[in-house]
Amino acid sequence: MRYEKFLAGRANWVKGSALAEVMKKAAELRARGKELISLSAGDPDPNLIPREILGELAREVLSNVPASVMYTPANGIPELREEISRFLERYEGYKVSPEDIIITVGGTGALDLLGRILIDPGDAVITENPSYINTLLAFEQLGAKIYGVPVDGEGMRVDLLEEKLRELRAKGVKVKFIYTIPTGQNPMGVTMSHERRKALLEIASEHDLLIVEDSAYNFMRYEGEATPLKAMDDEGRVIVAGTLSKVLGTGFRVGWVIAHGEVKQKILMEKSPIDFCAPTISQYIALEYLRRGYFEEYHLKRGLLGYKEKRDVMLSALEENLPDAEFTRPIAGMFVMFFLPSGADGMAFASELMEKKGVVVVPGGPFYTDESGKNAIRLNFSRPGKEEIEEGIKRLAELYREKF
Amino acid sequence: MRYEKFLAGRANWVKGSALAEVMKKAAELRARGKELISLSAGDPDPNLIPREILGELAREVLSNVPASVMYTPANGIPELREEISRFLERYEGYKVSPEDIIITVGGTGALDLLGRILIDPGDAVITENPSYINTLLAFEQLGAKIYGVPVDGEGMRVDLLEEKLRELRAKGVKVKFIYTIPTGQNPMGVTMSHERRKALLEIASEHDLLIVEDSAYNFMRYEGEATPLKAMDDEGRVIVAGTLSKVLGTGFRVGWVIAHGEVKQKILMEKSPIDFCAPTISQYIALEYLRRGYFEEYHLKRGLLGYKEKRDVMLSALEENLPDAEFTRPIAGMFVMFFLPSGADGMAFASELMEKKGVVVVPGGPFYTDESGKNAIRLNFSRPGKEEIEEGIKRLAELYREKF
Repeated sequence: MRYEKFLAGRANWVKGSALAEVMKKAAELRARGKELISLSAGDPDPNLIPREILGELAREVLSNVPASVMYTPANGIPELREEISRFLERYEGYKVSPEDIIITVGGTGALDLLGRILIDPGDAVITENPSYINTLLAFEQLGAKIYGVPVDGEGMRVDLLEEKLRELRAKGVKVKFIYTIPTGQNPMGVTMSHERRKALLEIASEHDLLIVEDSAYNFMRYEGEATPLKAMDDEGRVIVAGTLSKVLGTGFRVGWVIAHGEVKQKILMEKSPIDFCAPTISQYIALEYLRRGYFEEYHLKRGLLGYKEKRDVMLSALEENLPDAEFTRPIAGMFVMFFLPSGADGMAFASELMEKKGVVVVPGGPFYTDESGKNAIRLNFSRPGKEEIEEGIKRLAELYREKF
Repeated sequence: MRYEKFLAGRANWVKGSALAEVMKKAAELRARGKELISLSAGDPDPNLIPREILGELAREVLSNVPASVMYTPANGIPELREEISRFLERYEGYKVSPEDIIITVGGTGALDLLGRILIDPGDAVITENPSYINTLLAFEQLGAKIYGVPVDGEGMRVDLLEEKLRELRAKGVKVKFIYTIPTGQNPMGVTMSHERRKALLEIASEHDLLIVEDSAYNFMRYEGEATPLKAMDDEGRVIVAGTLSKVLGTGFRVGWVIAHGEVKQKILMEKSPIDFCAPTISQYIALEYLRRGYFEEYHLKRGLLGYKEKRDVMLSALEENLPDAEFTRPIAGMFVMFFLPSGADGMAFASELMEKKGVVVVPGGPFYTDESGKNAIRLNFSRPGKEEIEEGIKRLAELYREKF
């Protein structure tokens, strides 16, 4: 049976396909028994997560709390919203009522939900260029037109943002909001400077725009300062999409939206038919993890040090093996963006690197809102072990030198 | 700050609000210390679910399987897809490749996903009238125009379906698919007869339509036969939205879509940006639960008997206390639909029942696609205990006799 005629028109196959091709090829090679070094994941390290503790929490909760296998309210377990409110005050430096926190199916669920209640087909959304591919795809599925603003070592180029907004306004294009990952940006690995953050908020105020702050990597900061936009927001312009994915593990699917007024109301009305609720057992595990101080004990005092070490190993390996190449130097997050010489094809390089050298990386191109990032390669340092990082970068450098 | 101007146009506040009001009032009364008997949930009974076993599975998996805290492929863990394939062959009587099974964030996620890839704004969708309110809302959020076909004790009135399709065709309205819950329908509690199932498939074939079969209650059947539409489908017209929610617990959020060809391809492309993956720990718990035979041991041999008993208690209580009233007699599912005298207002009755008698029920009206069900009340028998059911129905009967 042919199904095409039944399919809805919305969708963007192209970007997703490009990336999916690489991942599919990796899966095929693995299935044929090939050992691959993966610098591609967007996952934390399962060995830096206290899995036995989480398992014990799960066992306790499932045995003792009948509600742990049931639906929760669409906005989440009240105790978890209270715990996250305290957590944000302590570690993010802002106070927000538990009533303004809505627990979502991970950060992805938070962003999709925000897109759904904010974006009408044809609406313009500003993002960093490059930005997180799944958010770009989710917004595009909803009919958004994405306008990217370039990023440098200090984050989004707010001077170019202003220019872009003036240009769009002159054309009569209606911008709904600015989507940004200010800390440990995916895929660039950069963190927005404090001055840029202030400027971004001022521009949003001047142009009367909302800001969607993706705080996915806020708890993966290894040095420096990065005040959340939400903590600097006097006007209620910042809506937060947060997650415990990088701390607890990406598989739990516990994220949140922080929103107020009619935005919150609309989310509360629309969320239930979409996902009913975030997974209950994950919510209870998150609740007990935070409540019992395991965030401090296992993430802040141990996990973060492990990630910092791995970042250092990757940067040293790049500096040693490819002293002249261009790459970012993250103070937060999970990624280094690496650039092949201008004009080179990152997609082809990633393919060849996997086939010839057994190293999986993510081509950067699909993360861009235009054609400017074809030579980019996203490298992950959070998931692989230190030896894998060293070996992976060594092999990447070999291919780099063979080609350029 | 006023946020209205930023909100997207899509949404249907009215239906959701009506129901939400009742649930909100119940929450408020409970918060003020009032003890309520709830016949309102769409949950199974946490005491008929082997929570200690599930807890032990969670502990084992989290401790021993590093991948259990990580993202899974968007379509789910391969082993779980294989296990579900075997499970469906054994208990649903049809064979489907693990490649055609896509694990979703519960049945709700499955239906939302199907809506997203099938519905363009303005598309017509046929449902039973009444039907599951969250599906109606999810499809309406996507811009679907819903056309309801009345239901009687044998399920959807396929004679009226044919009439409706002819009428819509004459008007030039394009129908995309028929959404049905053939077994243990929510909210009616009825199960479609075998003849109607055959007729439904023939009509779909004749009019070249897809059928979305919501099989949420297929494993909650207490007597009689109910061959899944998918098992009778020679043409690949039936897309299944399935779930383990009623068996494992609604909080785990493990459901699936069964789809083929381009429908499957489009889901695979669009799913990742929307939810990334179903919760990993829930997937592993489901995998081990099925693999170790706990479905047989705990659900088929024990849980089902408990639900059947509770159904019997509810039906007996209704027959005893309200021998002349009209209500459905389910052989599957979790719900009895109860009808006030024609012209009565179910919403007002539900409010009064909660305030005066401390019994929470769900008004049936919002489940209808038109105004025909204003006198309906949905009663749940799966979650409350037997004594609560008896006492709840006794009080409902008291108010009924005071009013009518």
